[in-house]
Amino acid sequence: MLESLTRESDLISPNTLSQGESGNRARLKERYLRIRSETDALSAPLSAEDQTIQSMPDASPTKWHRAHTTWFFETFLLQPHAEGYEVFDETYNYLFNSYYEAVGERHPRPQRGMITRPGVDQIGHYRAYVDEAMTLFIDNCADDLLALIELGLNHEQQHQELLVTDIKHAFSLNPTWPVYKTREQNPAANDSAPELRWHDITAGLYTIGHTGEGFAFDNEGPAHNVFLHDARIANRPVSIGEYLDFIADGGYRRAEFWLSDGWDTVQREGWEAPAYWDREGTLWMTYTLNGRRPVREDEPVTHVSFYEAAAYAAWAGKRLPSEAEWEVAARAQPHANGQMPALNPHPQPLAPGFVQDVWEWTGSGYLPYPGFRAAKGAVGEYNGKFMVNQMVLRGRSCATPPGHERLTYRNFFGPAARWQFSGFRLAEDK
Amino acid sequence: MLESLTRESDLISPNTLSQGESGNRARLKERYLRIRSETDALSAPLSAEDQTIQSMPDASPTKWHRAHTTWFFETFLLQPHAEGYEVFDETYNYLFNSYYEAVGERHPRPQRGMITRPGVDQIGHYRAYVDEAMTLFIDNCADDLLALIELGLNHEQQHQELLVTDIKHAFSLNPTWPVYKTREQNPAANDSAPELRWHDITAGLYTIGHTGEGFAFDNEGPAHNVFLHDARIANRPVSIGEYLDFIADGGYRRAEFWLSDGWDTVQREGWEAPAYWDREGTLWMTYTLNGRRPVREDEPVTHVSFYEAAAYAAWAGKRLPSEAEWEVAARAQPHANGQMPALNPHPQPLAPGFVQDVWEWTGSGYLPYPGFRAAKGAVGEYNGKFMVNQMVLRGRSCATPPGHERLTYRNFFGPAARWQFSGFRLAEDK
Amino acid sequence: MLESLTRESDLISPNTLSQGESGNRARLKERYLRIRSETDALSAPLSAEDQTIQSMPDASPTKWHRAHTTWFFETFLLQPHAEGYEVFDETYNYLFNSYYEAVGERHPRPQRGMITRPGVDQIGHYRAYVDEAMTLFIDNCADDLLALIELGLNHEQQHQELLVTDIKHAFSLNPTWPVYKTREQNPAANDSAPELRWHDITAGLYTIGHTGEGFAFDNEGPAHNVFLHDARIANRPVSIGEYLDFIADGGYRRAEFWLSDGWDTVQREGWEAPAYWDREGTLWMTYTLNGRRPVREDEPVTHVSFYEAAAYAAWAGKRLPSEAEWEVAARAQPHANGQMPALNPHPQPLAPGFVQDVWEWTGSGYLPYPGFRAAKGAVGEYNGKFMVNQMVLRGRSCATPPGHERLTYRNFFGPAARWQFSGFRLAEDK
Amino acid sequence: MLESLTRESDLISPNTLSQGESGNRARLKERYLRIRSETDALSAPLSAEDQTIQSMPDASPTKWHRAHTTWFFETFLLQPHAEGYEVFDETYNYLFNSYYEAVGERHPRPQRGMITRPGVDQIGHYRAYVDEAMTLFIDNCADDLLALIELGLNHEQQHQELLVTDIKHAFSLNPTWPVYKTREQNPAANDSAPELRWHDITAGLYTIGHTGEGFAFDNEGPAHNVFLHDARIANRPVSIGEYLDFIADGGYRRAEFWLSDGWDTVQREGWEAPAYWDREGTLWMTYTLNGRRPVREDEPVTHVSFYEAAAYAAWAGKRLPSEAEWEVAARAQPHANGQMPALNPHPQPLAPGFVQDVWEWTGSGYLPYPGFRAAKGAVGEYNGKFMVNQMVLRGRSCATPPGHERLTYRNFFGPAARWQFSGFRLAEDK
Repeated sequence: MLESLTRESDLISPNTLSQGESGNRARLKERYLRIRSETDALSAPLSAEDQTIQSMPDASPTKWHRAHTTWFFETFLLQPHAEGYEVFDETYNYLFNSYYEAVGERHPRPQRGMITRPGVDQIGHYRAYVDEAMTLFIDNCADDLLALIELGLNHEQQHQELLVTDIKHAFSLNPTWPVYKTREQNPAANDSAPELRWHDITAGLYTIGHTGEGFAFDNEGPAHNVFLHDARIANRPVSIGEYLDFIADGGYRRAEFWLSDGWDTVQREGWEAPAYWDREGTLWMTYTLNGRRPVREDEPVTHVSFYEAAAYAAWAGKRLPSEAEWEVAARAQPHANGQMPALNPHPQPLAPGFVQDVWEWTGSGYLPYPGFRAAKGAVGEYNGKFMVNQMVLRGRSCATPPGHERLTYRNFFGPAARWQFSGFRLAEDK
Repeated sequence: MLESLTRESDLISPNTLSQGESGNRARLKERYLRIRSETDALSAPLSAEDQTIQSMPDASPTKWHRAHTTWFFETFLLQPHAEGYEVFDETYNYLFNSYYEAVGERHPRPQRGMITRPGVDQIGHYRAYVDEAMTLFIDNCADDLLALIELGLNHEQQHQELLVTDIKHAFSLNPTWPVYKTREQNPAANDSAPELRWHDITAGLYTIGHTGEGFAFDNEGPAHNVFLHDARIANRPVSIGEYLDFIADGGYRRAEFWLSDGWDTVQREGWEAPAYWDREGTLWMTYTLNGRRPVREDEPVTHVSFYEAAAYAAWAGKRLPSEAEWEVAARAQPHANGQMPALNPHPQPLAPGFVQDVWEWTGSGYLPYPGFRAAKGAVGEYNGKFMVNQMVLRGRSCATPPGHERLTYRNFFGPAARWQFSGFRLAEDK
Repeated sequence: MLESLTRESDLISPNTLSQGESGNRARLKERYLRIRSETDALSAPLSAEDQTIQSMPDASPTKWHRAHTTWFFETFLLQPHAEGYEVFDETYNYLFNSYYEAVGERHPRPQRGMITRPGVDQIGHYRAYVDEAMTLFIDNCADDLLALIELGLNHEQQHQELLVTDIKHAFSLNPTWPVYKTREQNPAANDSAPELRWHDITAGLYTIGHTGEGFAFDNEGPAHNVFLHDARIANRPVSIGEYLDFIADGGYRRAEFWLSDGWDTVQREGWEAPAYWDREGTLWMTYTLNGRRPVREDEPVTHVSFYEAAAYAAWAGKRLPSEAEWEVAARAQPHANGQMPALNPHPQPLAPGFVQDVWEWTGSGYLPYPGFRAAKGAVGEYNGKFMVNQMVLRGRSCATPPGHERLTYRNFFGPAARWQFSGFRLAEDK
Repeated sequence: MLESLTRESDLISPNTLSQGESGNRARLKERYLRIRSETDALSAPLSAEDQTIQSMPDASPTKWHRAHTTWFFETFLLQPHAEGYEVFDETYNYLFNSYYEAVGERHPRPQRGMITRPGVDQIGHYRAYVDEAMTLFIDNCADDLLALIELGLNHEQQHQELLVTDIKHAFSLNPTWPVYKTREQNPAANDSAPELRWHDITAGLYTIGHTGEGFAFDNEGPAHNVFLHDARIANRPVSIGEYLDFIADGGYRRAEFWLSDGWDTVQREGWEAPAYWDREGTLWMTYTLNGRRPVREDEPVTHVSFYEAAAYAAWAGKRLPSEAEWEVAARAQPHANGQMPALNPHPQPLAPGFVQDVWEWTGSGYLPYPGFRAAKGAVGEYNGKFMVNQMVLRGRSCATPPGHERLTYRNFFGPAARWQFSGFRLAEDK
């Protein structure tokens, strides 16, 4: 999920959503207003200047996230379907289209940080204007549009996570280490990660992919059979304590552990540790949204690329799980308990007994499931066109909005990306 | 298979080869001399100048291919195992190591075209020197080294194909369109490709991967189960005549058919047709090793990237087969007949009834098979470390040495690569 | 003058300034406060967002200009010389040092747009804090520091001009064409430029360079002899009407008029007209700080590079004047009349009878005058270290603060720069 | 002189040459054959492979130099003026045109190393074919073409020097350090350079530029007046011994000595010493055409850029001479003695008493002399179009063909170029 340079999010197949939660329009309206206000709450600690800049082509300005998610509702719902609706500003379709070729020309992605006007205040007006229209619209629109509204909300949640990771990247370039939000340290934090245990996977045919009634993105289906071999998978991601052993053993200097492209990247970029780490004497420090501080050994390692995940696994004599293994194993767990202090506390763990709070790189390329076909029209550009050159991540992270996660969720990024909250867990053949 | 910027070839698992064909040392010696002389035959039409240049980082000079394949025998067999063997030249280990980190420092790949000395004549002496030593060695070496000799021969065959594709690329940059080798046009050539038919694949569990006794690269195993869904696959690759329809329908100008990375590539590179094509008025011309000539509609389209293959499939309302589908379908064919005039005629078709003479892009990422583990030592660097960012191609091409092909063969290149003889066939869900 | 990627401004030789205008401390204080408030007036139309971004490495954010000019007074005057002065913020020396190697490490120039914090408000506090300290300091400081204060004011004026040209560049990237400041069109504007006349220059020895008592940058001296040959120089810059003839005659498509590096630039950048021009049907439009509008034939052409100036001159069968010719001819004029509507009206024309309101490229490389030596210490980094790879511009532009211009002023930019208000006039040998 | 990325050489003004040496056709023919055979002699130690490669865009293959100089005679003399002459090969005008826009399209410069065909032998035939035609032509052509033949010979001499510097660069990339030509070490070599003395230049008007009757390139004129100030100039270039002091004093690590662009270059390129130097323990080694060996303190430092020359001068508290100072001082010397073992021994020193054997960077930008106008037609592209972004070098080097040097000669390269035999001498104001 989540927009990188070229992609954005996942789309529901239109027939999945016309009942269920959204069948109740009052609940949908309440949900609409809550999710929209959560975006504003995430932006609240940020100044107009903070919200304007783009720190790299992969990232977007906060202001752009706020406008683009609004543009989605305006473009795909209000403009075609709300009678008498007047577009807020004709230029916004050019400025805030992310990548929908079918919707027309758009502003070049690497130039998003150049758009100082409209300003942050004006984007606030835009959001309010569209929210007012949507509130009426939800009461009155045709049933078959409810699924599209639900999609818009999931889309906005994806951008909430990106807003957080993008501002972290932007702040990391400021030598004064700005604090995004002061937060209590987790008082229950231990000095070491939970004990590492292994779950068995027994060879056989399994079904993976989305089957239930609720919302899912199109890339999570169709549900289909896969044959898995005997294997084992860890109960939690690799911890920082464990990862420090890899570093200390020369992990970043020994070609033997690395994929060839990964080794090239390490040398070209001069990587010596995960992103946002720097050394102060013998101590590894990390920049967090709560400020800079020493790393904590009990936390899952995060801000590592697929290349680093794969190198660590080779060093450890293991491998990464496939996405099918991950899904099958997570589904099998009786109960669980999230561990890392989350921006958004997760009272309901994603996979009980399957400790996590980072997105987890798998060994699977991001490719279509058997039988997948992209929808027609602009909506079909959501996922299908990004299915090459990327690896699948599973789970969720501390920045994922509560309620947005799913066991079938397929997040995906290029193998060198590090600015997401990305870690990994180990697996091995039996 | 085949070396791209970072990789080279595939390695046999040491236990696969100590019997069978190579059990007979005389036959192995004959085979050694024949394959070695085929390399020289391929180089014979090329001048010293031709053999020296490197036309892009992905390609290598002819001279380098000739020296590197020789270095392989010297480094992995003669030097460690032939008593009293004296290295031909100490500097060659630096100059002609391709990518084996475990064997020490090496000359930077993009600088291979700068090595004017040793000259072509000297490389000829090097080959003769090693061949003489190898001829003795084959008679006397330990049994468990025979598999490694067989690997060296397969390695050399891979470089034979690269030698051909690399010189084609180099010559294509010369505005005088040099002819590599004059060749009779196929007299039986038709105006249209063979009729397009579809093979059924029935849903169920299948085993793919190398199981037999003969040689195979390590990435072809372990043999393992996969579950396939109901599908159909074409009996032959897409023809140039069919591809011309895609071009004429605006295929290279319509974003809707393209993967996002593919569309970026089309625009950045200004692609309007396969590699080596140019337009002369309304006629499409193509540069071949036989000189420049009009394209022929009955031939399989070749020199297309994965991106173009995927875009064509989207335009046609189909998809590419997975590598498992390809292997299962090819294995099921009763008989076949290669069609395209081949550099190396193929009396024994690869997959009977499965017309082909281009490598075929599949929809599968190049990733390890379940249970794959790289071998220890330098030999383990053959395949495992390239398993990311590449797509699998299946089959063989007109430049593949006869006898080198296998139904389980996994060739792989990045999705934008076009200088190989790469085409594709279609599949669809039932 | 003016900061480009690597340089900033010019420095007075310390002995030039201890008397004259600054001898009168009350007048200096008044002048200090006026120039400082002019900077704020230029920033007033800009939002916090506008002031934050950096549109290219050559340009800087408005906020940075405002902070850096303040840092100058704090670093070179208050900190070393004002007893009891407390630095406003310790991090600013890193953030707002432009290029003074002697003052320590500094923030990388291309990253200036990433500094969202301190925010615009905080920079306002910084300016007020330093202004208060400087007001006291001017009354009490040692005599020999007055020259350095005057330098700081000239430095700030240079950044005023850059602030204007940099925000123009930034706004030009916004497809909504923001208006910086609404301005009355010049009511006296004619349809054609003033008549073109020629001033004679008679061969002989002349003295050029700064000789008077007032302030000058170090690169304007020493005054020295030059021998000029018989020549003629135009009374005004080339007009847009004249430049349109060059365009219409294929000027941007005919290699014969261009310096080789210029022709490469034209082709690489796809130039077809001056910067900020675009075509609407057959009409040339231009983006100005007053909005987008059709070009006016009577105005001097501006936003052209040295390459374009030289190509036009070759097309016209003339050449550019040397900086010595320019200075000698300008000095000889009896009276003058500025022509172009200026951001800052110029009641006192720079060179009477020498119509101008654009910086003018000369044919002279930016090199040290005979006898030039850079001052010791940080101040010596002002000018000397930029004396290579740049061409001299003479005069002033519509964005130059009134009172800042001088006949001996040596402005300089690389030959491809176009974002300044840069035009040119013609000369020829007699 | 000498071709860099974009330029090539200098052209005679057509009227300069119709008498003098070339007035005597027999002598001209003899001179033609001698200079042509010197090119072949320089190529003789090089294999076909050596002659084919291009090691960087600034350099050209030996084979290209040999063909291009031949093309010059064919294109500008035989083809338009020799009755019945048949062009050797129609494709050569495309392949071997260097940069003459007026003569039509040409092969892209950075691709010169891709032209393996025509081969070295074929270029030999081309040379013989043209030589035969030229031999007849010299006897019979119109008088006013003799100057153009002389120009072609000077052009060929320029390429002789480039052939040497380009193959040195190419060989330097080969880790086996090839020897171009074994040569006796200068037996008279001392441990230290000649004593450093200073020549006075007295303020006043001087004439510089070509005035005599012999051949000169157009950029050496017109002769004109310049005013020089009191100064002193060294009697010899800076030696390696002296330059080692600069290195030892941290010269490459101290920003204070460097032009800003120079400092950027040092850091980007990681320069720590002149080109072709590397450190072996505490010893500085240098790659020469005679092989790799320790540096010699008594030799002039060479393979330094303008940036390094200027930094050394700043470190030494001096400056570089202007080209006018250089020419005036050299002209005033009574006698001289070349010092460095030359590829081509120089029995007649260029400037007596003005020791030299490296091209010497001056502080002058390469700009037109007053009154300079490029000639019409292709020939006018020789020099004028390169007059920006380059610095003038004066003198000659050990690779300059004997008889090709002149006191008025203006060689020019970009300030970062190091592959020529470029050094410098110091000057200072009195």
